[in-house]
Amino acid sequence: VALREPSLGPCFGMKGGGTGGGASQLTPAVDINLHFTGDFHAVTAAHNLLSAAIDNHLHRGNALGIDPRRIVWRRVMDVNDRALRNIVIGLGGPMDGVSRESGFDITAASEVMAMLCLADDAADMRRRLDRTLIGYTYTREPVTAGDLGVSGAMMALLRDALKPNLVQTLEGTPALVHGGPFANIAHGCNSVMATTLGLALSDWVVTEAGFGFDLGAEKFFDIKCAGAGLDAAAVVLVVTARALKMHGGKGKGELDTPDVDAVRRGIPNMDKHLENIQHFGERPIVAINRFATDSDEELQAIVARCEALGVPVAINDHFVRGGEGTLDLADKVVQFADERPTPFKPLYDWSAPVEEKILTVARTMYGANDVYYEREAKRDLAAITKYGYQNLPICIAKTHSSLSDDPKRRGRPSDFEVTVSRIHINAGAGFLVVLTGDIVRMPGLPKRPRAERVDLVDGEIEGLLI
Amino acid sequence: VALREPSLGPCFGMKGGGTGGGASQLTPAVDINLHFTGDFHAVTAAHNLLSAAIDNHLHRGNALGIDPRRIVWRRVMDVNDRALRNIVIGLGGPMDGVSRESGFDITAASEVMAMLCLADDAADMRRRLDRTLIGYTYTREPVTAGDLGVSGAMMALLRDALKPNLVQTLEGTPALVHGGPFANIAHGCNSVMATTLGLALSDWVVTEAGFGFDLGAEKFFDIKCAGAGLDAAAVVLVVTARALKMHGGKGKGELDTPDVDAVRRGIPNMDKHLENIQHFGERPIVAINRFATDSDEELQAIVARCEALGVPVAINDHFVRGGEGTLDLADKVVQFADERPTPFKPLYDWSAPVEEKILTVARTMYGANDVYYEREAKRDLAAITKYGYQNLPICIAKTHSSLSDDPKRRGRPSDFEVTVSRIHINAGAGFLVVLTGDIVRMPGLPKRPRAERVDLVDGEIEGLLI
Amino acid sequence: VALREPSLGPCFGMKGGGTGGGASQLTPAVDINLHFTGDFHAVTAAHNLLSAAIDNHLHRGNALGIDPRRIVWRRVMDVNDRALRNIVIGLGGPMDGVSRESGFDITAASEVMAMLCLADDAADMRRRLDRTLIGYTYTREPVTAGDLGVSGAMMALLRDALKPNLVQTLEGTPALVHGGPFANIAHGCNSVMATTLGLALSDWVVTEAGFGFDLGAEKFFDIKCAGAGLDAAAVVLVVTARALKMHGGKGKGELDTPDVDAVRRGIPNMDKHLENIQHFGERPIVAINRFATDSDEELQAIVARCEALGVPVAINDHFVRGGEGTLDLADKVVQFADERPTPFKPLYDWSAPVEEKILTVARTMYGANDVYYEREAKRDLAAITKYGYQNLPICIAKTHSSLSDDPKRRGRPSDFEVTVSRIHINAGAGFLVVLTGDIVRMPGLPKRPRAERVDLVDGEIEGLLI
Amino acid sequence: VALREPSLGPCFGMKGGGTGGGASQLTPAVDINLHFTGDFHAVTAAHNLLSAAIDNHLHRGNALGIDPRRIVWRRVMDVNDRALRNIVIGLGGPMDGVSRESGFDITAASEVMAMLCLADDAADMRRRLDRTLIGYTYTREPVTAGDLGVSGAMMALLRDALKPNLVQTLEGTPALVHGGPFANIAHGCNSVMATTLGLALSDWVVTEAGFGFDLGAEKFFDIKCAGAGLDAAAVVLVVTARALKMHGGKGKGELDTPDVDAVRRGIPNMDKHLENIQHFGERPIVAINRFATDSDEELQAIVARCEALGVPVAINDHFVRGGEGTLDLADKVVQFADERPTPFKPLYDWSAPVEEKILTVARTMYGANDVYYEREAKRDLAAITKYGYQNLPICIAKTHSSLSDDPKRRGRPSDFEVTVSRIHINAGAGFLVVLTGDIVRMPGLPKRPRAERVDLVDGEIEGLLI
Repeated sequence: VALREPSLGPCFGMKGGGTGGGASQLTPAVDINLHFTGDFHAVTAAHNLLSAAIDNHLHRGNALGIDPRRIVWRRVMDVNDRALRNIVIGLGGPMDGVSRESGFDITAASEVMAMLCLADDAADMRRRLDRTLIGYTYTREPVTAGDLGVSGAMMALLRDALKPNLVQTLEGTPALVHGGPFANIAHGCNSVMATTLGLALSDWVVTEAGFGFDLGAEKFFDIKCAGAGLDAAAVVLVVTARALKMHGGKGKGELDTPDVDAVRRGIPNMDKHLENIQHFGERPIVAINRFATDSDEELQAIVARCEALGVPVAINDHFVRGGEGTLDLADKVVQFADERPTPFKPLYDWSAPVEEKILTVARTMYGANDVYYEREAKRDLAAITKYGYQNLPICIAKTHSSLSDDPKRRGRPSDFEVTVSRIHINAGAGFLVVLTGDIVRMPGLPKRPRAERVDLVDGEIEGLLI
Repeated sequence: VALREPSLGPCFGMKGGGTGGGASQLTPAVDINLHFTGDFHAVTAAHNLLSAAIDNHLHRGNALGIDPRRIVWRRVMDVNDRALRNIVIGLGGPMDGVSRESGFDITAASEVMAMLCLADDAADMRRRLDRTLIGYTYTREPVTAGDLGVSGAMMALLRDALKPNLVQTLEGTPALVHGGPFANIAHGCNSVMATTLGLALSDWVVTEAGFGFDLGAEKFFDIKCAGAGLDAAAVVLVVTARALKMHGGKGKGELDTPDVDAVRRGIPNMDKHLENIQHFGERPIVAINRFATDSDEELQAIVARCEALGVPVAINDHFVRGGEGTLDLADKVVQFADERPTPFKPLYDWSAPVEEKILTVARTMYGANDVYYEREAKRDLAAITKYGYQNLPICIAKTHSSLSDDPKRRGRPSDFEVTVSRIHINAGAGFLVVLTGDIVRMPGLPKRPRAERVDLVDGEIEGLLI
Repeated sequence: VALREPSLGPCFGMKGGGTGGGASQLTPAVDINLHFTGDFHAVTAAHNLLSAAIDNHLHRGNALGIDPRRIVWRRVMDVNDRALRNIVIGLGGPMDGVSRESGFDITAASEVMAMLCLADDAADMRRRLDRTLIGYTYTREPVTAGDLGVSGAMMALLRDALKPNLVQTLEGTPALVHGGPFANIAHGCNSVMATTLGLALSDWVVTEAGFGFDLGAEKFFDIKCAGAGLDAAAVVLVVTARALKMHGGKGKGELDTPDVDAVRRGIPNMDKHLENIQHFGERPIVAINRFATDSDEELQAIVARCEALGVPVAINDHFVRGGEGTLDLADKVVQFADERPTPFKPLYDWSAPVEEKILTVARTMYGANDVYYEREAKRDLAAITKYGYQNLPICIAKTHSSLSDDPKRRGRPSDFEVTVSRIHINAGAGFLVVLTGDIVRMPGLPKRPRAERVDLVDGEIEGLLI
Repeated sequence: VALREPSLGPCFGMKGGGTGGGASQLTPAVDINLHFTGDFHAVTAAHNLLSAAIDNHLHRGNALGIDPRRIVWRRVMDVNDRALRNIVIGLGGPMDGVSRESGFDITAASEVMAMLCLADDAADMRRRLDRTLIGYTYTREPVTAGDLGVSGAMMALLRDALKPNLVQTLEGTPALVHGGPFANIAHGCNSVMATTLGLALSDWVVTEAGFGFDLGAEKFFDIKCAGAGLDAAAVVLVVTARALKMHGGKGKGELDTPDVDAVRRGIPNMDKHLENIQHFGERPIVAINRFATDSDEELQAIVARCEALGVPVAINDHFVRGGEGTLDLADKVVQFADERPTPFKPLYDWSAPVEEKILTVARTMYGANDVYYEREAKRDLAAITKYGYQNLPICIAKTHSSLSDDPKRRGRPSDFEVTVSRIHINAGAGFLVVLTGDIVRMPGLPKRPRAERVDLVDGEIEGLLI
């Protein structure tokens, strides 16, 4: 398997650790969740070294003529900290830098993280760093990280982080865990280097693309596979009765109670994801992850729908039984994969106009009627064209709680518009980050963060894993 | 040997790596300098998790009634970034936290780092975290990290960082490298746990206390040894002709040219450090680190002065010859140590009034006439007494470029006053941080930072080591 | 005549004084332009006293529980100063207030100015002040100025400003000059009290409503007349060849050169304003203000269009000849007025839904296809309904350079959408301020502000009047 | 009489109106207190026009190379508003100016106000405006208001404000009321032009210099008289039993109760002021302002002390009896004045070193042992010398609640040091503003500001006068 690394943010926020559960886990789970091999920290350090170099440049005469109000490179930290989203820096006086507005994103949304995940090798990584757009001069010329002269130092900080990490599952399956972009606010895939390494070393590589198919998987195909020349042999859509119940209108506290009607009301959400898979020319397989509180009737409702649609379906019981619990699914996947499917069909052509690419994803994947660009986004569109970035693929940042850009709209929303608030040029990563709805790239902590339940007791960490 | 870990800040700022040079280095030097075992990153993450919890508490109703203007807990990052010294956070609107002034220190100045270095064990670390003062309520009651409920999560993040790291010198001497507070803006000593571990495992432990004796060594005795019940068997003062030339009035660019008169003019600086050692009831040994550009005449001038003072002196040539180059020094040190010296005499009694403790250090160590407290510092003194922290030892933050608090005053300054701008209560670390002169706890990058010379070439990092 | 008072902002910005020109001026022109009777200063002082009271309330325990992030009451200053649009206040420490984001608008956009213009008398003014919405509590309850307890002091500051000011034209016509809201960013009409006073004292009152008919006149009818029970006996649309040339595509520097084709290309803009007048059930009269550089052919092109439309038209030459130069116009106006026209027909019913009111104005007056609400504006709409302000009329802030909300679209734009960025509740003024496009309520100075040309020479002010 | 104009700040803050009381008042009192002839508003407008021009200059390319962090020209507003003391302006984006730290002072502390008070005439005012220091370039060259090109526009705004205002007392004595600098945070004297005009028109001019003799009167002699060639014919020290009781240890709420011991304990404060008068070579006369609650015994204690010191003394009863109540004082003053006293002796020579001038005032007037300069003040001293402003007189900003710089030290404090936090160069006013202790130049509102008691009832303003 080739998977993403967990971020500290969710570990101490809402979600807790991200290494699986029950009999189906990566090991050593706690270590993977906390610091692991230091890749996130290296990305943070490299990212912020560039930030410090930019502000140092402003402070020391600003030879490049960078307009402090048009710097787009922010800082990152691997924590959920909403108070850092929008800040004013460089206060205190002439010795303390130049005052300007800026902010922090979470490390999982760092463009350095995206570059690490999309780079072919170190040399490619270096080229990506050099071409990264960090802002504009007073005369509106673009300034790149290469102009600041610290790409080499960033590479030094990233030397080890560039290498895929090898761990294993509880059953001993080798696992390459490398790269950690979120799928809502970033492109959501593990690294190209790890995936390629896995393909070179084994018959099959199982990988994941975060959240719903609309987010991670769309980007998996249109950004990662299209960019790196990869393809999928088979596509599995993971479904749970709990998620469908939420899409059927139930609240978070009501999911332990069986409610087959709610499941049925939520099924149109699954339908949409299945259609979405087909938009890529792929044939879906459904994997139902069983929870202890699920009723058979609930699961059968899902199975029935899949059968009605002619989609292969398997009920997974790996939480309790490990790999044995997914043999049915595995058989189905291997069968598909062995059939050597035709190459995937990208949703859009990278050379299409930016607005067309966005509209295609919004309509085809999300089911939107239209896309609305706020004033800033319109200016961003103009800048993309002016500076020649219009051929980059798009990485849409969108809530994972809905197919739409409004987290409250469950099920299969229709008759909605997607609102684009900003479009950031990630020249190093090689894509355009399209922010929709109210999404922000630095999460906040919940009222009762998981951090309050984590502890170190007799040398063992408790409360972190689910 | 038991030493401190290097910080990324200086690595990419003025100084470069901090693992020795020539034949006398820790290995693997690059890895120790960059990320090492992740201890600095763990300290950063734990520190900032608490910061995020504080701002989340404000955002979510502020049940404790914390006054946002009286929060003393800042954030840290392991980088030289002056633009982060003074910032306004929590801007952007009701969803983005509570607006307030704050800032970042460098990780080496984090109180978590100090706690890690002074804790006896994990349980002590936990107690220290819990009692850490993070601010005051609207009714001026102190608020501690324990009140925020995330000490357990901080401990989880620090689990591995708490453990001393074992590396070696190029010649195979075991080296415990653990903890990294700077000696100008923090207490400047490696961890108590590493030192204690070293003492348990070997006949002799050689440790260091950063910058001049006035900074690191004063704190080594008055904070680390006094707190942990340690003592020094022998005290070595490291001297270079280059440093004495600077104290004799030469500029940084002039140090390669022999100038015995400048050395002689700088010698009063050495004299003062030798006297300072004796103030602790210790007998000094002088080690002269030889540089290729030093003339014999220069070195002999130093030797002559030591002999005139009756102080044992040895010329070290370990940069070129490794351990063999320091055999003379080693003999002298072992001889002293074998004589079982009397216990060191602290400079002050922890229970003395705060102003008396500061005055004692300023007069005895620095040679100051008096100490002046600015208005904020006077308020800090009042708070220390009001909240019962007056029995803590003091950790003076002062420039390392002068015995005084003015970096421009070289040699052995006299007729000066030390200005105290702020006194921070580090209840977890267990000391009061006394800021003097213009010192700040977040360094800046120089005009041409070393980051511009560092690179990754064919997988090897260049430009980092000196 | 009953006119508005000039603001200092434009006097020193782009435009210069606002008291007419040539033979057709108010006198004493300089005094009216600078300070006049102090009304603007009184509005500024009253407005900012409330602001100070709000921040003092936060500072002194915040008994009302006002959420600093949800305060909508800003500060005002009678100056063009873009650097004050968005600021962070309350920095510096516990003695210096509570940190929060805020900003300044120009005094002409102050809600106090709007109240002064719309109040029937002092008692009504006091009621308006008391009900003014200044923000929300942490529990989202609205807070009014009355809750702060300084409405009486505001009234004291406004005592004299509430009284209409009497001056005269160069020819001795009495002129009531009172109240000064801009017509692009405010409601653009002189005070109800002055208009009413004028009507009581004379046969006819000539008043003005700033910028195009789409801005000031729409608000004159829908806000001022509808609210105060006033009506217009006749409506004059002022037209210049220069303006039509701009709408026909010429630049600011090209207007001195006759270009009848450009005039003709600009005429659809006039047509639209004429239609707009008819939307209110009024019959338009066109007054062409002649400039020395206009060619007869240009003026005849306008006349010809009016005649083709059956609209009475007169060429005014008052700049050169004073009142005598407008006798033709005067005859036509009196003729219309004497015919006792039917009451004006408001464009919308105050009780219609807010979005319907906005859409009506956007479609009917501006020629827009539709209205788009940005995310903040959508939240504002929800708040308006939640707090029961949906029956207030709307005061749209829009560029005066175009019928659309994009200042670059000249002539009679079509196929455009109006973008609403925010909707502010002005409960005291009694309307909803709808911000469209990029409009802001604090202007900036131009590259070469008129302030650089104004001087005091031998006690006389030069460079201020046009 | 030639007096200062009241500021709106105290009117709505702690103190209320400033036009006298009882039978001894200026009239029309309310109008003088609120807006008056608009002089304060004109000063505010002129001051802030320059501020806007500076920020506009930064925004539009910054041709002068002004360092935004070294701009010393702030903004002013005539209100008590602590939240404006320290602000960050220019936020919001590239269209909204350049981000930087700044703040507001109260108009009474505006340098424009000081210039208006010290200028000989309009031509001198213009020269002062032109030479006003507003900041420094990136290369540390001073920038003056003249460089910004808006001095002419400032003069236009100040045209009428430059002219003294003539009102009268309730008994018809002509009163020139012009200029309003506070005496604690500014130089505290009415305008030179008004004083000179008064001297030309009448036999005697009675003027005032705010707060204690240590503040206003010291500046009256050393700044106003020394600069304008004026002198005093007689010096009256106003004393109240209430003030002496406060200096004798009583609280504000206890002053209505007679307490002759408290008066006696407070008398050393009076003694010091009497000595201070003699330091200027002047002979003091004491005027005791009687309050209804004063006991005869209290007043006699003061009289007795004066007699013991050989100082003429008179008890004033003008609050109840008007001018008649001060005939005794008047006789004594005229007697002194008729004796043609020798010219006053300045406390220091303008050409003395700055630190000497400050020390002289601190020791001689305040009774301090020494003066301490904080770090910023030391840098200010260096700048004053570097840029050639060392020959300006000094205007010390100090609390009026104590002879020392600590408002809590009542009576006649001894054994104290004065702390200087900053020294501002007011090149236009022609003095150096020396900030001591915690003084700030923008007051705050009290817990229950007078604004809450002021109202407009039936067209009359209530609650404003004392």
